[in-house]
Amino acid sequence: MSLARPAVLAAGLALACVSALPAPARADEGMWMPSQLPQLAEAMRSAGYAGDPAKLADLTAAPLNAVVRAGGGTGAFVSADGLVLTNHHVAFGVIQYNSTPERNLIDDGYVAADRAAELPANPDFRVLVTVGFDRVTDEVLAGTRGRKGRDYQQAVEAASKRIVSECEREAGIRCSVATMYAGTDFYRIRQLELRDLRLVYAPPRAIGNYGDEIDNFMWPRHTGDFTILRAYVGKDGKPAAYSPDNVPYNPPSHLQVSATGPQAGDFAMLAGYPGITYRHRTAAEFARQVEWTLPARVDVFDALIGVIEQAGRGDATARTLYASQLQSLKNNRKRAAGELEGLRRSDAVRLRAEDEAAMLAKASRSDARDIKALAGVLERDNAVRERELLLGLAASQSQLLRSALTLERLRIEAARPDAQRESGYQARDLALIEGQLRQVQRRYHPDVEKALLRELLGRYQQLPDAQRVPEFDTAFGRTPEALEQALQQLYAGTTLGDEQARLAAFAAAREGQALPQDPLLALAAQLVPAQVRLEHARKASEGEQLRLRPAYMHALAAWRQAQGRALYPDANSTLRVSYGKLEALQARDAVTYAPVTTVAGIVEKHTGEVPFDAPQPLLDAIAAGDFGHTADPQLGTQTVDFLTNLDTTGGNSGSPVLNARGELIGLNFDSNWEAVSASWWFDPSYKRAIHVDMRYMRWLMEKVYPAPHVLQEMGL
Amino acid sequence: MSLARPAVLAAGLALACVSALPAPARADEGMWMPSQLPQLAEAMRSAGYAGDPAKLADLTAAPLNAVVRAGGGTGAFVSADGLVLTNHHVAFGVIQYNSTPERNLIDDGYVAADRAAELPANPDFRVLVTVGFDRVTDEVLAGTRGRKGRDYQQAVEAASKRIVSECEREAGIRCSVATMYAGTDFYRIRQLELRDLRLVYAPPRAIGNYGDEIDNFMWPRHTGDFTILRAYVGKDGKPAAYSPDNVPYNPPSHLQVSATGPQAGDFAMLAGYPGITYRHRTAAEFARQVEWTLPARVDVFDALIGVIEQAGRGDATARTLYASQLQSLKNNRKRAAGELEGLRRSDAVRLRAEDEAAMLAKASRSDARDIKALAGVLERDNAVRERELLLGLAASQSQLLRSALTLERLRIEAARPDAQRESGYQARDLALIEGQLRQVQRRYHPDVEKALLRELLGRYQQLPDAQRVPEFDTAFGRTPEALEQALQQLYAGTTLGDEQARLAAFAAAREGQALPQDPLLALAAQLVPAQVRLEHARKASEGEQLRLRPAYMHALAAWRQAQGRALYPDANSTLRVSYGKLEALQARDAVTYAPVTTVAGIVEKHTGEVPFDAPQPLLDAIAAGDFGHTADPQLGTQTVDFLTNLDTTGGNSGSPVLNARGELIGLNFDSNWEAVSASWWFDPSYKRAIHVDMRYMRWLMEKVYPAPHVLQEMGL
Repeated sequence: MSLARPAVLAAGLALACVSALPAPARADEGMWMPSQLPQLAEAMRSAGYAGDPAKLADLTAAPLNAVVRAGGGTGAFVSADGLVLTNHHVAFGVIQYNSTPERNLIDDGYVAADRAAELPANPDFRVLVTVGFDRVTDEVLAGTRGRKGRDYQQAVEAASKRIVSECEREAGIRCSVATMYAGTDFYRIRQLELRDLRLVYAPPRAIGNYGDEIDNFMWPRHTGDFTILRAYVGKDGKPAAYSPDNVPYNPPSHLQVSATGPQAGDFAMLAGYPGITYRHRTAAEFARQVEWTLPARVDVFDALIGVIEQAGRGDATARTLYASQLQSLKNNRKRAAGELEGLRRSDAVRLRAEDEAAMLAKASRSDARDIKALAGVLERDNAVRERELLLGLAASQSQLLRSALTLERLRIEAARPDAQRESGYQARDLALIEGQLRQVQRRYHPDVEKALLRELLGRYQQLPDAQRVPEFDTAFGRTPEALEQALQQLYAGTTLGDEQARLAAFAAAREGQALPQDPLLALAAQLVPAQVRLEHARKASEGEQLRLRPAYMHALAAWRQAQGRALYPDANSTLRVSYGKLEALQARDAVTYAPVTTVAGIVEKHTGEVPFDAPQPLLDAIAAGDFGHTADPQLGTQTVDFLTNLDTTGGNSGSPVLNARGELIGLNFDSNWEAVSASWWFDPSYKRAIHVDMRYMRWLMEKVYPAPHVLQEMGL
Repeated sequence: MSLARPAVLAAGLALACVSALPAPARADEGMWMPSQLPQLAEAMRSAGYAGDPAKLADLTAAPLNAVVRAGGGTGAFVSADGLVLTNHHVAFGVIQYNSTPERNLIDDGYVAADRAAELPANPDFRVLVTVGFDRVTDEVLAGTRGRKGRDYQQAVEAASKRIVSECEREAGIRCSVATMYAGTDFYRIRQLELRDLRLVYAPPRAIGNYGDEIDNFMWPRHTGDFTILRAYVGKDGKPAAYSPDNVPYNPPSHLQVSATGPQAGDFAMLAGYPGITYRHRTAAEFARQVEWTLPARVDVFDALIGVIEQAGRGDATARTLYASQLQSLKNNRKRAAGELEGLRRSDAVRLRAEDEAAMLAKASRSDARDIKALAGVLERDNAVRERELLLGLAASQSQLLRSALTLERLRIEAARPDAQRESGYQARDLALIEGQLRQVQRRYHPDVEKALLRELLGRYQQLPDAQRVPEFDTAFGRTPEALEQALQQLYAGTTLGDEQARLAAFAAAREGQALPQDPLLALAAQLVPAQVRLEHARKASEGEQLRLRPAYMHALAAWRQAQGRALYPDANSTLRVSYGKLEALQARDAVTYAPVTTVAGIVEKHTGEVPFDAPQPLLDAIAAGDFGHTADPQLGTQTVDFLTNLDTTGGNSGSPVLNARGELIGLNFDSNWEAVSASWWFDPSYKRAIHVDMRYMRWLMEKVYPAPHVLQEMGL
């Protein structure tokens, strides 16, 4: 399982040329924009789809408008009264937020007996319903003529902000601008922002996360990775923060769970919000990824995991507070290692280089000139990559330091007119910032934070001078002793560990007023100007990439067309559709994995110890063999998970999987280990996606941890 | 891979009743005595055997007389000039013995350019050729009438020794008495003892032990676990110790490697010396194995592995000296864990209890009485099991302590007439003892030995008083401090670390004379009387088991006959034959393993780091794809290993695998992880054996590390 990394303003190619391209040779490759599907109609039908592909083109109409962003992943409406089905790991924060030592919903699961018993999610959990998707390329690029570097980036950003700002005048709507084909095309996305989500049904951890890190990215799998939430809105039907007076949201459409299940070879399709892919990156970027980025990530994640586990060994409180961060780090570590292994196995660096060389041989002179300039930009980025990694993690993996940096930056930005503020610090972002500041309490322990920073900044101290930042050296010194002294003083003196203190600082910062006296806030005042300076350098590079990558995409599209292949844009957290089938995996020499698992595997894996501690009611129900209509007629037993060749990446977690008739048969929750490198390189021999079989979910809800009223609401 | 544990005088049932039994329902179960094969002729033929099963009945005639005991495993003659094919791990000591830092045969492998370049094995390495197998039941049991306990055991032992002593009057012959069906029947086995073995061909470690502990017991496998030795004899054709004047031994027959290879479903048979199985043990013994023995073994092996690895971390010498012991401990640890897992998965304790209950319901009154008495004997053994485990390991896992105990015991025994001495200390055993004393030098480091004893005796100190032995308490005290002081004094003062000192003590001990002054020998003088006392108690139990188990076997044979099943005796290091076929393995839910692996898997597993560091010449040869006539015609590539459902256990390492025409197609070297519990419980769903495909060996010897002269000698 893997959550999406945040989408970035990435790179593009005029959509016009897509419609001219033939369908792809393989049905199982491609994260298609819904608008591309009518052109793929013939391929989809020959793959087995029984519906009309043209009806899938509009992502604001049924069935695609039932597919939503949920937390860091995807979800889908499954009832007229706003039930949202997503993964257990996508909703894990919601379950954790409602868990206490006395009422441990993580371990025990939860079944809301009625609507009054549905439990409010953490305040920053969101469900976003896409209600608009419009091309705004001309408007975005209008101000970029003759510009370069940071100017180009600022022109794109200013236009995007203006578009977003206008768009968000409507209450309850969040907007964004996404680029397709890496700067070639831009779309305005309007999303209804549902803020009151409640927990309806969660299986116990030992079902929802059976196998945990050991089985993560593994097939065969036996995990019931699903959770059901319900979206609420104000009595006026508009999005609202949690209130006991809110009412269930009535979505414009919802998916219907299929009465039957899939078998090997059956057609399957999936819709969701894949976070980010790099399939169309340059050969040099492929080489950097394999030779530096992934090894470096594995190394630093290992170190951070070690720090948290060490801290948790004797301290149950620290263990609980950092459970979520630890899980995320382990997940990212495993993913990086798997990407590395997969890219090497597929020989992706060499193949991409050969593909690019063939492309360049046919590229126009002007494209070739821009592509060469792009290579220079990327090369310059390489010179500071170690620093970027470490300082980025120092902010993202801390709670109080991150809070202080956010508050100081907010104070600075708040002094400007809203439209000129940096993204993430505008009026529209305040509620999210406040939510994050509030929940620090649930995720912070001073000893762990100091240990994490000791590790990261200690590594930073070892970097050569060319990568050093004076403000950081002043703040933390250049020796381990100086760093230690700085950390001890900062965390002994700060009051930001107190929620009221953070909220008081937030109240000042949002008005652009002076922040309270506090050592961490004073530190932030030192560091933020340096951060801004580094950010400007990054934006200059980003601007050049936005300006230059369209030439690369243009040359690539032409080369693909010459090859008879269609081109889909790299994933960017916008709604995409993939179609294919249930397919076995020949993972290794002499090893074949069937595409459907059964409850027998739960018993085989059961050891009684975490993470293979199947709950006794589940084991009893399996032993009893009372599967009834949820059993697979051919296998004669209860299925658990299934495997398809669908094209997915992080962010597709929780994506609904539909059969040829558009009925819900599965819930995507992971990729196989052999396929995690697919974010860069698609290898049809190994790329698979792993889904919870809806029959397993139904059986659990019927026979093991019953929730007949929820099933009834889902029309089952 | 796994070496045989030493055979013990185990348990039997009158052969007469076997001939009356029908062939087994399944062709793949049973370690048959060759004499049983004529009765299985119909079953063997319907399984696909093309030869005459009656010709397999005589293990002293071709082809079975080509199958020999080699080291702790099995081997086979493969040329008229005494080439012996066995496993790399069976001959590992031979390779290690000839390795130096300057000439690392372990890492580099070895190809003897000619006979002069063949390297002498370690002096205690033996190849035994069975030349006689005769029933001596009446003679062995004649003196047991009216006896019980230790008297019974002594009567059996005295008769066995007398038989062995008479038998060994012939020079170059080693004899033993083996019981079949747990005390029911006894056989005299005469074996030619070849003492001059030389290394002819060994692949590099990264082929012969590719995957090492990670792949140990695993399928799919990609290991070339083979080595070729040559047996030499004196110019008179008689067995002799190494001498440059010796000449190659000409065996009475040898096996011919097949020109073609096997495919899934093909008939296969295997002959070898399986060490010990417990298939016919009581339900209470099954319960003890699962509930105590295996968990306790895993625990203590983990501790010893940790001790050796810790010691080797900063000390390359210690690492080399203990490489073999560490490998053996890891192997035993993994095996114990796998047995435990498998017995639990097969629910063997419950099934054996049900089977036994059904058997008892039909047992005669006199059998039932003996079986009840047997249960009492086994229960009494349970009371001292922790002590037995720990003190046994303290002797077997040490070098100097073991040497001292051996020398002291030899001194005591040597004072008696040879025939009255304890087995292992008779004149016939002296060469073996001397060989062990000599090679201490290659396997001993004082710090590691002290650390191992600190661990084992430290655990012993925690046992309750009922399991304590006064002499051990006197020697090592009852506190960790006292133990530490004792160990430091013993090892600071002893001269047994010096080979000459050991051999001087040996010279005295073998004559029954006083041993030199030495703290470890003084300690041994204290401890050996206690060891003898404990040994007497064990022999009393052993005697009762020898007396009582035949009733159990009798009742079991009757019950099996009622079920329509034949009964084979539990393995006891005597020559057995198993037949079956190449068969895939459905190891787990949704997982199927094909029965043949290919070189593609070597490349997939290759990481460049031990143990997956395939040598560059191998990788180059795979990339070149020049497989020629050794390629599998259906797979179109080079095979590596294959999988059968043959019935094997430790000791079968190196067993030749033959096709339907009796040609050599494989070399057994391991079981799959799912089947290691088969030493107790045969589960046809999971029991498989893993073999080197002879086509892989041939390809390596033709194209990768060429040895055309050796191939030619093998008729290839």
